[in-house]
Amino acid sequence: VALQRGETRERGRVALDAMGGDHAPAAVVAGAVRAHVDHGVDVVLVGRPDAVTRALADVGATGLLPIVPAADVIGMREDPAIGLRAKPDASIRVAARLALVSAGSTGATLAAALLQLGRLPGVRRPVVAALIPASSSRSVVLVDAGGSPDAQPEALVGYARMGLAYAEVLAVEMPRVGLLNVGAEAGKGNALAKAAHTLLSGTERFAGNIEPEGVLAGDVDVVVTDGFTGNVFLKTVEAASRGHGGGAAVLLGVDGEVLIAHGAADAGQIAAALRIAADVATAGLSAKVGARLARH
Amino acid sequence: VALQRGETRERGRVALDAMGGDHAPAAVVAGAVRAHVDHGVDVVLVGRPDAVTRALADVGATGLLPIVPAADVIGMREDPAIGLRAKPDASIRVAARLALVSAGSTGATLAAALLQLGRLPGVRRPVVAALIPASSSRSVVLVDAGGSPDAQPEALVGYARMGLAYAEVLAVEMPRVGLLNVGAEAGKGNALAKAAHTLLSGTERFAGNIEPEGVLAGDVDVVVTDGFTGNVFLKTVEAASRGHGGGAAVLLGVDGEVLIAHGAADAGQIAAALRIAADVATAGLSAKVGARLARH
Repeated sequence: VALQRGETRERGRVALDAMGGDHAPAAVVAGAVRAHVDHGVDVVLVGRPDAVTRALADVGATGLLPIVPAADVIGMREDPAIGLRAKPDASIRVAARLALVSAGSTGATLAAALLQLGRLPGVRRPVVAALIPASSSRSVVLVDAGGSPDAQPEALVGYARMGLAYAEVLAVEMPRVGLLNVGAEAGKGNALAKAAHTLLSGTERFAGNIEPEGVLAGDVDVVVTDGFTGNVFLKTVEAASRGHGGGAAVLLGVDGEVLIAHGAADAGQIAAALRIAADVATAGLSAKVGARLARH
Repeated sequence: VALQRGETRERGRVALDAMGGDHAPAAVVAGAVRAHVDHGVDVVLVGRPDAVTRALADVGATGLLPIVPAADVIGMREDPAIGLRAKPDASIRVAARLALVSAGSTGATLAAALLQLGRLPGVRRPVVAALIPASSSRSVVLVDAGGSPDAQPEALVGYARMGLAYAEVLAVEMPRVGLLNVGAEAGKGNALAKAAHTLLSGTERFAGNIEPEGVLAGDVDVVVTDGFTGNVFLKTVEAASRGHGGGAAVLLGVDGEVLIAHGAADAGQIAAALRIAADVATAGLSAKVGARLARH
């Protein structure tokens, strides 16, 4: 994770954490090559030069993509706050002007993005947003899809607000948000869900509790839950529908474009995530979300 | 819920809470009639005599099934502890010798069963167990499938023990239990999952963390989690695989047979649950689980 605040971002160019993910760097670098060759995505590889150079050579692509040295990159299992402060290397800034894709630790990516990019105005805690394919030929925004395993009820109100702004950017008019729960009635669920229901009931666009079936039917535009339940839900949908879920999740609430790919992503899924990242960077997603958050 | 401890149970006969469930009594009574006519299940209807009589008449089945008066039944939205103490009516004992099926509030059913049937020796907190269809042509036992939305880490150790005993009754040799989590490594998950992992690591048959994909692949025989996450997981599997999930969940750890059907169960699903209940009652499931718990 190598981002710096306040730089002008280059639209459409994507930085890839070449060392992050269960199959890094081989599958990750192979995915970058595929995204570049097949789809013209402009990718910069961030990682250990020797390992990345070897991975490029292994797929016959020596010299094809620029490499930002790894010494500047915070290891995905490293404490991000300590690591980022200890390594203020200049070359880290190369990646700062780009959208970032990482298949490494979600928690570390979130913490590093928070520290280096900063929050959008009015955001207390950024959130990971994934798109769940609903049967009605459109997608439902899931927040938190796996950023923060433990959450306070108040955090879910912020997640809902960011999810609604994201849905608006995706051209949903007057989006509605539901609370993921085990029953439709108020008073259902665990302590977190009950408290969050009470808080959300005082907000606009709240459609009440929603069960998994309702989410998959597209009965709401946004579904809000804690990151543990959200990640179990996302992974269950993907597993039960067999191999969907190439799409990367977006980090909402930071002042820059950060995409989180599956830790177990293969080359094809990395390539797909890079294409999404290029689109998101070109569209300027974070600025648009920020503009909508400022309005409400 | 109408159960009394210490009575001799009639094998194969099933008591149905005719008033419990979103579509009660109409769909529930229709399901009972179907189970009786099509599959020979011996059902007793427990509920308000006027409403149940009318529901029987509506499907042309007046007088077909015996009715246990409703005055003796604890309302599904009523506080079960208070309700059960306030209504010690004699006729409640009719249902005591039978397996019970309820599509009403799971929490109330669990509390009432606990109070009236009592726990099996060595059990602190009974748990709801559902069967998840795994791709390997067999099923994985899910505990807790929705009994207690909030759980302490210690409770999950007990759930695992009961789930393993149930798997043994289902003829799995040397079953293994996984902890439902968002990653395979120790240290993943929310506070509950982390603490439960530590406790479970000291027990036999623990296979570590398991992600949704692994559960659906049948990589373990039992998967343990809290009742909120478990219920979201179960409902997501059912919704994503479109309309499976006729099966009822079993309450493990009480001294009697209690089956929990979906709140939204239709007549066909109620009929299916009644057939399972009859089989479970004939097999004497709770006694078998108790015998296996005593061994470990």
